[in-house]
Amino acid sequence: MNLTNRISIPAIMEVGFDKLANLGFYINKAGFDKIAIFFGSGIKELFGDTVLSSIKNIGNIEITKLYEFESNDISDIVENGFSIPPKTDLIIGIGGGRVVDVAKYISFLNDKPFFSVPTSTSNDGFSSSGSSLVINGKRTSVHAKMPYGIVVDIGVIKKSPVKFFYSGIGDLISKITALNDWKYEEENNKAIVNDFAAMISKKSIDSVLRLDFQSIYEDYFIKEFVDSLTLSGIAMEIAGSSAPASGSEHLISHALDKILSIPQLHGIQVGIATYLMSRVQEYRKERVEYFLKTTGFFNYVKNIEIKFDDFEKAIDIAPTIKPNRYTYLHNKKYNDMAKTILRSDKILKDILI
Amino acid sequence: MNLTNRISIPAIMEVGFDKLANLGFYINKAGFDKIAIFFGSGIKELFGDTVLSSIKNIGNIEITKLYEFESNDISDIVENGFSIPPKTDLIIGIGGGRVVDVAKYISFLNDKPFFSVPTSTSNDGFSSSGSSLVINGKRTSVHAKMPYGIVVDIGVIKKSPVKFFYSGIGDLISKITALNDWKYEEENNKAIVNDFAAMISKKSIDSVLRLDFQSIYEDYFIKEFVDSLTLSGIAMEIAGSSAPASGSEHLISHALDKILSIPQLHGIQVGIATYLMSRVQEYRKERVEYFLKTTGFFNYVKNIEIKFDDFEKAIDIAPTIKPNRYTYLHNKKYNDMAKTILRSDKILKDILI
Amino acid sequence: MNLTNRISIPAIMEVGFDKLANLGFYINKAGFDKIAIFFGSGIKELFGDTVLSSIKNIGNIEITKLYEFESNDISDIVENGFSIPPKTDLIIGIGGGRVVDVAKYISFLNDKPFFSVPTSTSNDGFSSSGSSLVINGKRTSVHAKMPYGIVVDIGVIKKSPVKFFYSGIGDLISKITALNDWKYEEENNKAIVNDFAAMISKKSIDSVLRLDFQSIYEDYFIKEFVDSLTLSGIAMEIAGSSAPASGSEHLISHALDKILSIPQLHGIQVGIATYLMSRVQEYRKERVEYFLKTTGFFNYVKNIEIKFDDFEKAIDIAPTIKPNRYTYLHNKKYNDMAKTILRSDKILKDILI
Amino acid sequence: MNLTNRISIPAIMEVGFDKLANLGFYINKAGFDKIAIFFGSGIKELFGDTVLSSIKNIGNIEITKLYEFESNDISDIVENGFSIPPKTDLIIGIGGGRVVDVAKYISFLNDKPFFSVPTSTSNDGFSSSGSSLVINGKRTSVHAKMPYGIVVDIGVIKKSPVKFFYSGIGDLISKITALNDWKYEEENNKAIVNDFAAMISKKSIDSVLRLDFQSIYEDYFIKEFVDSLTLSGIAMEIAGSSAPASGSEHLISHALDKILSIPQLHGIQVGIATYLMSRVQEYRKERVEYFLKTTGFFNYVKNIEIKFDDFEKAIDIAPTIKPNRYTYLHNKKYNDMAKTILRSDKILKDILI
Repeated sequence: MNLTNRISIPAIMEVGFDKLANLGFYINKAGFDKIAIFFGSGIKELFGDTVLSSIKNIGNIEITKLYEFESNDISDIVENGFSIPPKTDLIIGIGGGRVVDVAKYISFLNDKPFFSVPTSTSNDGFSSSGSSLVINGKRTSVHAKMPYGIVVDIGVIKKSPVKFFYSGIGDLISKITALNDWKYEEENNKAIVNDFAAMISKKSIDSVLRLDFQSIYEDYFIKEFVDSLTLSGIAMEIAGSSAPASGSEHLISHALDKILSIPQLHGIQVGIATYLMSRVQEYRKERVEYFLKTTGFFNYVKNIEIKFDDFEKAIDIAPTIKPNRYTYLHNKKYNDMAKTILRSDKILKDILI
Repeated sequence: MNLTNRISIPAIMEVGFDKLANLGFYINKAGFDKIAIFFGSGIKELFGDTVLSSIKNIGNIEITKLYEFESNDISDIVENGFSIPPKTDLIIGIGGGRVVDVAKYISFLNDKPFFSVPTSTSNDGFSSSGSSLVINGKRTSVHAKMPYGIVVDIGVIKKSPVKFFYSGIGDLISKITALNDWKYEEENNKAIVNDFAAMISKKSIDSVLRLDFQSIYEDYFIKEFVDSLTLSGIAMEIAGSSAPASGSEHLISHALDKILSIPQLHGIQVGIATYLMSRVQEYRKERVEYFLKTTGFFNYVKNIEIKFDDFEKAIDIAPTIKPNRYTYLHNKKYNDMAKTILRSDKILKDILI
Repeated sequence: MNLTNRISIPAIMEVGFDKLANLGFYINKAGFDKIAIFFGSGIKELFGDTVLSSIKNIGNIEITKLYEFESNDISDIVENGFSIPPKTDLIIGIGGGRVVDVAKYISFLNDKPFFSVPTSTSNDGFSSSGSSLVINGKRTSVHAKMPYGIVVDIGVIKKSPVKFFYSGIGDLISKITALNDWKYEEENNKAIVNDFAAMISKKSIDSVLRLDFQSIYEDYFIKEFVDSLTLSGIAMEIAGSSAPASGSEHLISHALDKILSIPQLHGIQVGIATYLMSRVQEYRKERVEYFLKTTGFFNYVKNIEIKFDDFEKAIDIAPTIKPNRYTYLHNKKYNDMAKTILRSDKILKDILI
Repeated sequence: MNLTNRISIPAIMEVGFDKLANLGFYINKAGFDKIAIFFGSGIKELFGDTVLSSIKNIGNIEITKLYEFESNDISDIVENGFSIPPKTDLIIGIGGGRVVDVAKYISFLNDKPFFSVPTSTSNDGFSSSGSSLVINGKRTSVHAKMPYGIVVDIGVIKKSPVKFFYSGIGDLISKITALNDWKYEEENNKAIVNDFAAMISKKSIDSVLRLDFQSIYEDYFIKEFVDSLTLSGIAMEIAGSSAPASGSEHLISHALDKILSIPQLHGIQVGIATYLMSRVQEYRKERVEYFLKTTGFFNYVKNIEIKFDDFEKAIDIAPTIKPNRYTYLHNKKYNDMAKTILRSDKILKDILI
């Protein structure tokens, strides 16, 4: 009997238009009626009316407590997080990545189901079981609660700042090199690929890559894009690790976080690193380049100032970030190759400074 | 505590080239070493050497029994199925849909893990938990064992008869109308959609639909196509029902099975019905038409003789096949519309007689 | 992710008075409303009215089909077992061990939940996931369905034939030597004990052993006795094997089944073998002897004719019944000791002929 | 698919002599090799050598960090709890209830398996998934991690202070009234009893109650007693609530915690309340009285000063502690009866002041 390895798949996954205005319906459908809500900073002004009247309309849902709170410092979380009224049967986080992380963690501490309602999708965190918090002054990834429900309103996402869009795109494309790193790890007997997690991760990115779109603001593109980030979070849950969604390109980004005093958005760094690593891995590099070009990602990140020197340092220390893994960057040959390509690639020359 | 609803996901999912020649490796990787093999009729001649030497090469795998047997009559299965040596820790079925169904059922009766190794992929049965058997003289769908491993050799599939190809294509495209029927059922409060099952089913068909291919015999197409059928079987397991993979178009095919003395291949019937139902549902019909045209499905099925009259009868009795469901065909309005379109549609006029 | 090892625990476990008259209530409580019933031979005459009016009283439960059928030949089962109406959501077996086994197996074939309603409890089969069937003319233990509900009416059990009582007592006491064999197997690195299964098995037998009773027909004794057999079945499900409930004493009984043209009741044989093995193992032998004496088991089995010679042969071939296990009898030293004790023990001299 | 309700059963459950000296063996058997250890205050002096050399003897187990730390204030826990080296694959808590709770919570925060190694057993917390912590200055029960392993050294328990013994006995006997409250709740349609959880809880207490013992310091008594507390923790996990282990008698104790500036040990309060409630419920009261008398519990608690007035107040506010439950004390009739019996019962007159 092995009852200790187990996965949680969200029971509610709604990605589409007017989802915020139907939030009450989904809460009710899932059988909850005593909810605590966390709004991110400024979110109640923007969407409070929509959300609260959708809940009111259902009739029998009680809001046990309403927070406007998004400090992700563990001390604040602990101080406030245990004040959830015991009768609460669902915790909802509405807003950007930060409040989603905070509410997700408080759900974990209280062992209560969680609804993730992101108003921007700069990475796949809204559908994963982890939270990024500040612990003893340092940004730390911690285990939290897999969402029971994920509700994403395309109309809301559409109006979110462009930087979050491109960050999300960078995070999405990273699944290509991440999956290839995982396969490489298995070939080197350092890991076992979970075939199902790999397959849904691959399918979800491919269905976006092969989409015929004119603009990333098209409804159809956004829907597909958010669906795919959602599946990416779930693939990690199924795999029991971040491997299906995070490889060498993520290590470079984590390294940049250490090097830079003010890092760029996670997905921005990851997207650039994905392009580089697809060249190093010689794996679907035309596809990656084409996608980052046609979505406008390359154009957008030109305005972001990242230095060649920092990127090079990041490649150097990337393997030390997760010493137990074995990505292409953990092999000196490819690590060196990454640095060579970094300095010679035409597109990167155009982006980095 | 609810320990009675549970899902099994295959731990091994290998779709690619030279997979038969590596079958021993996958058996060993999964930790089995006492295996019983079922070869379908004629399969041992074709692939026996490849399979057996791949197993021999591993060294420590014992073949406890080797069957060449594919009668899917329950009496034969019961007579032979309990002769599996008790020490056997894995049962493998290699061949067409029939032997895979038989070996899958014998795995179920013996409560032993099962490897599904199809040599043709005319539908998603190779990755599902059901078997189609003959019971008291009638073809009957019964619950069997979800495969623990799925191993598909693209090179082998490539050489399988063209009719199986087109049947598989018909079964794959059916997920579009099936998912829409499921959604319709939920909107009419007759079912609850499992969002995760629906999402992976949708992603898996979309990644094929959006593929840029010249011929269905391209390696890349076959790989994607088989991957997607695989996920379709798993989506049913996750949903705990056939709903994510089988809607009104499947009901028409089941009805044809009852009407016709010699029915066509399942996926052939299903593919034609999917085209019809996509028009009835007004749902992604251009996409469906385009795919069935460019894959050559329409051209192929012209040579298949199915009568308008039989198809019409099938539409009539379709709702009675699964009275508990509520697809578009269960609504008289759409059922009538289906018959009207059947008689007037230009493409169908070209196909049916 | 390991979703392939999983356990099912009965959701309904009712042991007490007037349970048959409340069967409808339990069916309804568990959420079923379309049931197929299997009555054992003669059972409908005895309890049909009670059962059927308890169901009728609930109001909304439909009996989809009613069988009076208990042939445990696999051919009969297959011929009849697939005639369960598809809408059926629960299968119930009411009667002795045989019809419970048959209905349990038909539930397995149809993948439907099963209620086990034994009217006698001669062993722990009513709460286990196995069935004893006749396959190709031979009695064979096969995997079937773990009951979703177990309903035992003490008043009914109280009136069941005395031989079933003593058989049940023999099967219950066997857990002592079985658990010790399992521990021995682990100490010899041939098995890993599932601590939880072992603990509930031990607790359940101990709570009966330590009971202060005057007669085995006391209500309290019967209740405890049936509860403990129930937990024994569940312990096997948790362990994923019969080890917590079946050791060397069961091997002797299985061997006797092979040797004798007409074997005794399973639990009768097992009970005698348990006494012998507790002496061989030097493990709680006073306790075993005291229990079998005070329950009247020894007195009862004096009238059963089992020959020393057959018992000796059974000890000889016991290890070959399950060559993969390693009980005390698999060790030549203890196997020899068993035969010596067999011939010299005073109590056995009194019982065997 | 319902993957969100799930239970964890400890894989390792070792209760017996010399278990501390074999701790390394159990760690290794469970497959861990990078462990962090939390010793309670003073525990390293007492048992450090035994524990550490048992680990050293195995050879390949690395101690990633060793803490002597048992502040159960959430601020201290958060400050220190995230310093566990990431490579750690097991966290072990060794000592009294407090350090076990702390280490269990830190395992929860780090999502790592936990071994519970109590050196005293004053309640069933060592085998449950909850921790009692100080949050914002108040003692609060929070969800933590179900132990993966439970290792209890009888020799160590034997030498633990007598007050912990009697507290454990009080907590154990409370399962009788708790189970009856749960049944009462179901009869009043306020809860659904989990039959399996109830049955193992009942069996585990009965196997102790029916034990023939001279002194609670007998090895056999201690072993049974600790086994039963262990099963009690697991019963809660299976039920998904504390109901199988905590009823009206626990509510009285929780109320006393609120009323008294320095409450007595949990199990001491609970034991007295169990005696009272067994009289109110008219349920197995002779058994409860007999057990508390023969174990010396009544004699021991005579020296504990609890006032009638406080106890009466506690009965009054008990129902408000868990307003969602419905125990006998939630019914005014029985609540009043409890207060009457409190003032008139001869044994209580002897104990309370």
